[in-house]
Amino acid sequence: MTSITIIGTGTMASAIADVASAAGADIQVLGTSEEKARVLAGRVAGTAGTVGDDVTGEIVVLAVPYPALATIADTYGTRLDGRVVVDITNPLDFATFDSLVVAADGSAAAELQVALPGARIVKAFNTNFAGTLSSRELGGDPTTVLAAGDDESARQAVLDLATAAGLAAADAGTLRRARELEALGFLQLTLAASERITWNGGFALRR
Amino acid sequence: MTSITIIGTGTMASAIADVASAAGADIQVLGTSEEKARVLAGRVAGTAGTVGDDVTGEIVVLAVPYPALATIADTYGTRLDGRVVVDITNPLDFATFDSLVVAADGSAAAELQVALPGARIVKAFNTNFAGTLSSRELGGDPTTVLAAGDDESARQAVLDLATAAGLAAADAGTLRRARELEALGFLQLTLAASERITWNGGFALRR
Repeated sequence: MTSITIIGTGTMASAIADVASAAGADIQVLGTSEEKARVLAGRVAGTAGTVGDDVTGEIVVLAVPYPALATIADTYGTRLDGRVVVDITNPLDFATFDSLVVAADGSAAAELQVALPGARIVKAFNTNFAGTLSSRELGGDPTTVLAAGDDESARQAVLDLATAAGLAAADAGTLRRARELEALGFLQLTLAASERITWNGGFALRR
Repeated sequence: MTSITIIGTGTMASAIADVASAAGADIQVLGTSEEKARVLAGRVAGTAGTVGDDVTGEIVVLAVPYPALATIADTYGTRLDGRVVVDITNPLDFATFDSLVVAADGSAAAELQVALPGARIVKAFNTNFAGTLSSRELGGDPTTVLAAGDDESARQAVLDLATAAGLAAADAGTLRRARELEALGFLQLTLAASERITWNGGFALRR
């Protein structure tokens, strides 16, 4: 089975730890708070540390808010070269809830690929609410993880992790499609914030 | 019940005619080919005419490809003032299938609102494949119609039409959200074109 490092200890970090645990992955959790990392790692029989520690996972999930990506890229730099690095962020302007803060023709994931040119960036999990990852179901069907990235084997590694956890998975193509995944994540957040859907709902992909 | 004018006679025009028929709406079909309009109108007990004829519907659905919107706006101009005008287009660059042809921070619907300032533009149906409108189901559940527009009552009129037809409906907010609806439609088209989903599949919205 694969190994995964989760950077972050919040709701999404916890939900992705549940997915990784269900997939039987070796799990490392790194937090700004070692205490919180230890609590989360303990729940999924993983190891814990703080941000800046060497990552042990083949897949490194940056389960942090968008503004923290730049700091993590600075902290790790070339130490993430060759790794599958997963960006899960929805770079919303939370002041207005009416636009994204990244360039209209870009994406947070594309920015991260520029900041970490040696890493194999994959956009994934940003279209899944935490509850639908932990429960692994959305409206009675398996939750679908969408992944986009320029490295096909990296993309596949994330899709395989999802599938191994009992989730559905769909290849969304190259990193250019991260723009559309972020639009989808944004739209879904506005629907939940305006109570048109619940935080256990969202977009399900039907074949 | 409401009245609807469908401009166009293709696959999406036919599917939206099925929806309007299921909703019990009075239907007018206008085509560039009067013959094709007559065939489609005949199937749903509507009236037929050619593009340029006065519209009789309170809701006017422009069931045409994106490049035809400008021509229709030129043809009708202020004659569409006050009408609920529905843009269903996905303005893809079909040469590359890798981007949209509208401004990255805009949408086809926003362009149409500029071209027809007196009309009440609603973006809708662009996230629904034709088959899922005609059958009114997606993976065993009612197909969901998403609608965005700056005029709340116009948006609601489209959502009410969908609901009356037995579809699910969700208010996606102002016309600015048309950008995200077009991104969603684009993503869905790339998934179908690459055979990750079928043309009877797509994104379902779960509450």
